[in-house]
Amino acid sequence: MKLVVAILQDKDAQHAISELNRRGFRATKLASTGGFLREGNTTILIGVDEKEVEHVLSVLRRTSSLRKETLTPQTPAHSGEPYVPFPVEVTVGGATVFVLDVDRYEKF
Amino acid sequence: MKLVVAILQDKDAQHAISELNRRGFRATKLASTGGFLREGNTTILIGVDEKEVEHVLSVLRRTSSLRKETLTPQTPAHSGEPYVPFPVEVTVGGATVFVLDVDRYEKF
Amino acid sequence: MKLVVAILQDKDAQHAISELNRRGFRATKLASTGGFLREGNTTILIGVDEKEVEHVLSVLRRTSSLRKETLTPQTPAHSGEPYVPFPVEVTVGGATVFVLDVDRYEKF
Ligand code: NI
Ligand code: NI
Ligand code: NI
Repeated sequence: MKLVVAILQDKDAQHAISELNRRGFRATKLASTGGFLREGNTTILIGVDEKEVEHVLSVLRRTSSLRKETLTPQTPAHSGEPYVPFPVEVTVGGATVFVLDVDRYEKF
Repeated sequence: MKLVVAILQDKDAQHAISELNRRGFRATKLASTGGFLREGNTTILIGVDEKEVEHVLSVLRRTSSLRKETLTPQTPAHSGEPYVPFPVEVTVGGATVFVLDVDRYEKF
Repeated sequence: MKLVVAILQDKDAQHAISELNRRGFRATKLASTGGFLREGNTTILIGVDEKEVEHVLSVLRRTSSLRKETLTPQTPAHSGEPYVPFPVEVTVGGATVFVLDVDRYEKF
């Protein structure tokens, strides 16, 4: 048994948890802030059999990786100027994941 | 030294922590939600000497196990119908516990 | 790689995190309450290379140790009595730190 401790962006955490649940993995969400990533992250705990660690990591990688997103601002940058919406590229996501050995696991 | 990471139902967490404290174990409560158990759980951390792990687990087992409780609803299921209180059995509690090795422990 | 789990007083946590960040260590802050220390503590997670564990511990020791502070109460102890401010010594701070081995570390 391993304990996966994953620190994700808030906006990715719910997607990651849903995808984990769909595959039968249980995740517990802890409130967290700042630090490893930009503000607004979430720490999740996932207990998993050793042979499923790779599967869990692949779900996290797919839902939470650092990526570029194109965003079109909805308001003018300077009020009074004629506004031409101009798409900007922003970096979102990113995950830091620690896999820990579990000495003993109990469920009761 | 071991670090016990226990995920309990909110309603059991305070009882568990009181019983742990009464026996001299210190528990730190983290806010958490969803996942391993039904919504509304709490994660607690307990640092403990290896020889006391069994004692901590027995306290958690006693305060937090999955169990049936009988509950008598206080309001009619369908408004307008004559109301005969009827006890229903519900499942409450449950805990998921990970015991981790501690490489180094410091208190200052 | 090691995962440092530190439980600090709320009032020390922000200072500790700033000092860690200034040295290039990333810390994730989890909300927590009660237990290892008096009410109002914060749990922080710090992922760190084995050779930097001592450095992280020294930052935590310096920012968060149990210490005496002298405090001058601003209001009379008994209303109606002539008030002579009298400094009192209080104990603040304190940290409990667990260093855990990390089986696998991923960042994506
Ligand atoms: Ni999806
Ligand atoms: Ni009791
Ligand atoms: Ni400072």
